[in-house]
Amino acid sequence: MSIVELSGGVGGARMARGLAALEDVDLTVIVNVGDDAANHGLAISPDLDTVVYTLAGLEGPQGWGRREDTFALNEELARFGVDNTFKLGDRDLALKLYRTQAMAGGIALSAVTEAVARSFGIESTVVPATDDPLRTMVRIAEGWVTFQEYFVTRQHHDEVLELRFDGAGSARPAPGVVERIQDAHLVIIAPSNPPLSIWPILAIDDIREAVAAHPAVIAVSPLIGGKTIKGPADRVMTTLGLSPGNRGVAEAYEGLIDGLVIDTSDRDDVAFLDDIEIIVTDILIKEPEAGVRLAALLVGR
Amino acid sequence: MSIVELSGGVGGARMARGLAALEDVDLTVIVNVGDDAANHGLAISPDLDTVVYTLAGLEGPQGWGRREDTFALNEELARFGVDNTFKLGDRDLALKLYRTQAMAGGIALSAVTEAVARSFGIESTVVPATDDPLRTMVRIAEGWVTFQEYFVTRQHHDEVLELRFDGAGSARPAPGVVERIQDAHLVIIAPSNPPLSIWPILAIDDIREAVAAHPAVIAVSPLIGGKTIKGPADRVMTTLGLSPGNRGVAEAYEGLIDGLVIDTSDRDDVAFLDDIEIIVTDILIKEPEAGVRLAALLVGR
Repeated sequence: MSIVELSGGVGGARMARGLAALEDVDLTVIVNVGDDAANHGLAISPDLDTVVYTLAGLEGPQGWGRREDTFALNEELARFGVDNTFKLGDRDLALKLYRTQAMAGGIALSAVTEAVARSFGIESTVVPATDDPLRTMVRIAEGWVTFQEYFVTRQHHDEVLELRFDGAGSARPAPGVVERIQDAHLVIIAPSNPPLSIWPILAIDDIREAVAAHPAVIAVSPLIGGKTIKGPADRVMTTLGLSPGNRGVAEAYEGLIDGLVIDTSDRDDVAFLDDIEIIVTDILIKEPEAGVRLAALLVGR
Repeated sequence: MSIVELSGGVGGARMARGLAALEDVDLTVIVNVGDDAANHGLAISPDLDTVVYTLAGLEGPQGWGRREDTFALNEELARFGVDNTFKLGDRDLALKLYRTQAMAGGIALSAVTEAVARSFGIESTVVPATDDPLRTMVRIAEGWVTFQEYFVTRQHHDEVLELRFDGAGSARPAPGVVERIQDAHLVIIAPSNPPLSIWPILAIDDIREAVAAHPAVIAVSPLIGGKTIKGPADRVMTTLGLSPGNRGVAEAYEGLIDGLVIDTSDRDDVAFLDDIEIIVTDILIKEPEAGVRLAALLVGR
């Protein structure tokens, strides 16, 4: 059974881990690249790496970065007055360095990602939404800043007033992405931040059209008890003018989804969501077993 | 007292450590960049870094690299099929990454080196021979290879048949280098490999001329008992057609030096060296105290 997942970072990676554990599932994870950045001249793809590390069972304790990594290089950068706020582990940096070199040699991000996933023994397909530059820009009170500036440097304290996806207009889907969506039995939108992690993927016209045309698209809400477990999704949705709770999630994917999976703690939201199918279940998937259970429920319907 | 040292890696760094420890010495170390290379896309300057780490008291146990460094990043590179023969430590890589970024931003190697030396609390001036590209190429039986290929990858097992210094013809001395030589009370050529470490510096015309014109240039032999303690200098000198022993060292610096310091174990070489002043003393300077003693002897003459 062919499954496509649209994914941001930690939440999407955990959903992917659950799906990948199922037998007879051919999983393709299409990953947000709007957070990608050049840090110390290195090609940083936070969401791609989180998905890869999580599928390899090597993710860090917070869900991102490499497990049991060390930070000698990052700490030493401070000696030279380099901003090392964005903490990069030594092992994690090996991947960044490899990707940077490969891309400098003309290899596309999708091809590098394929090689990286293979080197970690991952059988699922992990693919960036696009090989072209696409950058999520965030407008806060002070003006437009990059995603990394908003999220890492400013620790997502600011109110998000507007989003812009630079490059999305000319970005082409990475090779195979549209075909994978079209051929999928089921498209799952991960419990990632809808505006910050999924909209950048959907900002690519051909991907949005393929998702809109697909007959079985199910989103998993990032909300539990009306709040996000981590990250600013609930606040961001509010300041961007979306409704509170899962009604806002449904609005974020308007015209795209056929079903929405919400947490049992948010069962009252059902009343507001009468034009799409609602599945109510436990959606906290921090533990791998919970992810497998949720994945099995989605795939087995 | 103003002292200039022309330096390669470990031997030159130890000589510099001795000189820097003397009171009233204003030391400028002009360092070979012929071994510089791009490794994993990073700007590697082996001799500059060895001099900086040694002057900072942070050199590795073999004389190069950082003391108590870890190798997590380098080891992890193997996962991606990247050649990691050239072992780069995690802390050492922070310097490489900083330099690469700074140079990508248009800052000259000499300016980066100045900032690096300052960040390590070094009071001496450490300067590359040139900011322009200059690469030592080595002809072995198989043809021309880079210095790193010859030295690191092939572990300097090959006979060196010929040397070439690509870029030397158009390389300008780094800012201040010629003036420092002209103003120096004494120019010391370090106990480095004459053809592989010092010739690349002297391959820059303006530097060679300034050294040739200087009235007090003393070379310290890299030989002890006719052999080098480490590295292939003795073999390289032979295959390049220089005489054995210190006669060959004197030939390597013909027309440039006014004196040559040789080891007590090589006192018989004096017979062959009648056109320059010969100083016979213990020149093994692996221990810092020995370096200070030798430095004091050279400066106090």
